[in-house]
Amino acid sequence: MLGLCYDESMKAVIFKGKDDVVLGERPDPTIQQPTDAIVRVVRGCVCGSDLWYYRGINPHKVGSIGHEFIGVVEQVGKGISDKKVGDFVVAPFQYSDGSCVFCKSGVPTSCIRGGGFGNGENDGGQGEAVRVPFADYVLIKVPGSKPSDETLASLMALSDVMCTGHHAAVSSGMKQGDTVAVVGDGAVGLCAVIAAKRLGANRIIALSRNPARQKLATTFGATDIVPERGDEAVKAVMKLVDGVGVDAVLECVGTNESMDTAVKIARPGSTIGAVGHPAHVEIPYAEMFFKNVGIQGGIAPARLYIPELMKDVLAGKINPGLIFDFETDLEHIKDAYDAMDERRAIKSLLRVSEP
Amino acid sequence: MLGLCYDESMKAVIFKGKDDVVLGERPDPTIQQPTDAIVRVVRGCVCGSDLWYYRGINPHKVGSIGHEFIGVVEQVGKGISDKKVGDFVVAPFQYSDGSCVFCKSGVPTSCIRGGGFGNGENDGGQGEAVRVPFADYVLIKVPGSKPSDETLASLMALSDVMCTGHHAAVSSGMKQGDTVAVVGDGAVGLCAVIAAKRLGANRIIALSRNPARQKLATTFGATDIVPERGDEAVKAVMKLVDGVGVDAVLECVGTNESMDTAVKIARPGSTIGAVGHPAHVEIPYAEMFFKNVGIQGGIAPARLYIPELMKDVLAGKINPGLIFDFETDLEHIKDAYDAMDERRAIKSLLRVSEP
Repeated sequence: MLGLCYDESMKAVIFKGKDDVVLGERPDPTIQQPTDAIVRVVRGCVCGSDLWYYRGINPHKVGSIGHEFIGVVEQVGKGISDKKVGDFVVAPFQYSDGSCVFCKSGVPTSCIRGGGFGNGENDGGQGEAVRVPFADYVLIKVPGSKPSDETLASLMALSDVMCTGHHAAVSSGMKQGDTVAVVGDGAVGLCAVIAAKRLGANRIIALSRNPARQKLATTFGATDIVPERGDEAVKAVMKLVDGVGVDAVLECVGTNESMDTAVKIARPGSTIGAVGHPAHVEIPYAEMFFKNVGIQGGIAPARLYIPELMKDVLAGKINPGLIFDFETDLEHIKDAYDAMDERRAIKSLLRVSEP
Repeated sequence: MLGLCYDESMKAVIFKGKDDVVLGERPDPTIQQPTDAIVRVVRGCVCGSDLWYYRGINPHKVGSIGHEFIGVVEQVGKGISDKKVGDFVVAPFQYSDGSCVFCKSGVPTSCIRGGGFGNGENDGGQGEAVRVPFADYVLIKVPGSKPSDETLASLMALSDVMCTGHHAAVSSGMKQGDTVAVVGDGAVGLCAVIAAKRLGANRIIALSRNPARQKLATTFGATDIVPERGDEAVKAVMKLVDGVGVDAVLECVGTNESMDTAVKIARPGSTIGAVGHPAHVEIPYAEMFFKNVGIQGGIAPARLYIPELMKDVLAGKINPGLIFDFETDLEHIKDAYDAMDERRAIKSLLRVSEP
């Protein structure tokens, strides 16, 4: 392992194709630019979007995988001043330089020099270590003493899903006191419930038919559970809100059906905060148009959200780590994918090393 | 004519089907509810959306047509207190009660008791008189002395197109100093140029290939004209803005091509203010999603915008009436449609009576 045994290779999960992820080897990451840092991964996890590759729905290059990780800085380039060896850090799921025209205007996900972790080429979070470009900007230090296992899980959730759920809420323009519906009960949808609660929603309607997820949604602040789907879900939600629609919809799935439901339950003049990864989604635009319903959202600018959400995690105000209901290690990576693929798990945590 | 000769019928344009509009007769409108008023039409006009019916693209009931009009109050119901006979008024293109849950939340276009003028059943603006429901709320009085012909044209534009162009600008969230692109050089697109200028855009790129419309766009405040279409238009706009995209797009067409162009020229993180009447538009959602580009807009809440825009019309600050480059009367209604259908005219004004 890098920095400990000075091997020239490390263990890392290799995506080989549909249904095929294995623990293999990749070269030890090295500093390539003065602005790089090497992070030893403490926790990684499997994302819903990784499952789409695993199922063969979306293409993924053969190679590294996993875009979420937290860990300890092991090496820094000469240009790094804000991070030092030993810092415990959270990484957003994409890197960005923090200085380009898009980063400066609040959209680091469109960074001109940015990119993704675990995309087949760059190191991923499902491995022992990661080279992080622009590390002074990208990595966010976790202050204080060594986190507990529970805190580690919640910090891990900040890498993607908690920020993505938060992005749905922010993009919807929801206000304190609003009635909000969350479409989708995956990890992101459940984190969107946390986000809606945190931003002051008065009523949170969670669309979920899975008892374990219903329970977690309620723990996170959902006030109403709608187990129906499709037109029946629309009827059920509209009945709850006297037919006027909800003040904001947080769309956390990204399918035709979920978008159709979102548009139908949205109150005229409201906005759908959409973060469901779109696989050829058809937007029911005419219906949106005549209701003056907008859509905002997209890939979450996690880098911007992590600092404020981390404060609430460390203060014990939010506990997104509860979405991890399956835990294993790199050796059992296939179990981690299969548990999610078979919907036995909401999200699988990977225990890679200790802080 | 109503109120003058006490006939029991009035002249009104009747939509009969594709390519078939004729001047016919409809019953004189009468007060049916205490909150009604009868307005004698002074000016009407033909809307781009009327053309879609005329071309057989969108369906329209046989009967009254024309949703835009200004005129003089001729009768009022017993429940009317804010309007009186003789008031000169502008009507928004839809009526609404001003008191339902949606009106109260700023979306009168979704009014529970609202509806449209000239929809085959309700009286339309292409006729001598109109029954206006909820007239105390719906109609906006024009203060001062009898308007000039030029002012009448600009007041006429407030009924729909100027408010619709303004809605594109407002929905896009554009700010002072922004670089804005306007997709579409119809009456609405040209009014969107006025709106963008009025709201402080620093640079306004108008996509137009028609010399007369280019000239008017420039008069209204466009700083750059892009005559290309499709991918060539995208290239031309992106070249103007150093490849970063524009701060806001005002989409005033409503076709697949216009929406595709809008998404491609939108800067990451920006919003498309969309008011182009959608005929089966496919939204390139995946591209929007990865750029964090949103869409807001829809049917314009003209009732809410007319008061502030009327002030600027009466002060001579904006002159949207210049979009009317063809004028005729009810007898020559087919000429009014054909001039627009053959793109000889941007928008046809109907001189129905005098104030």
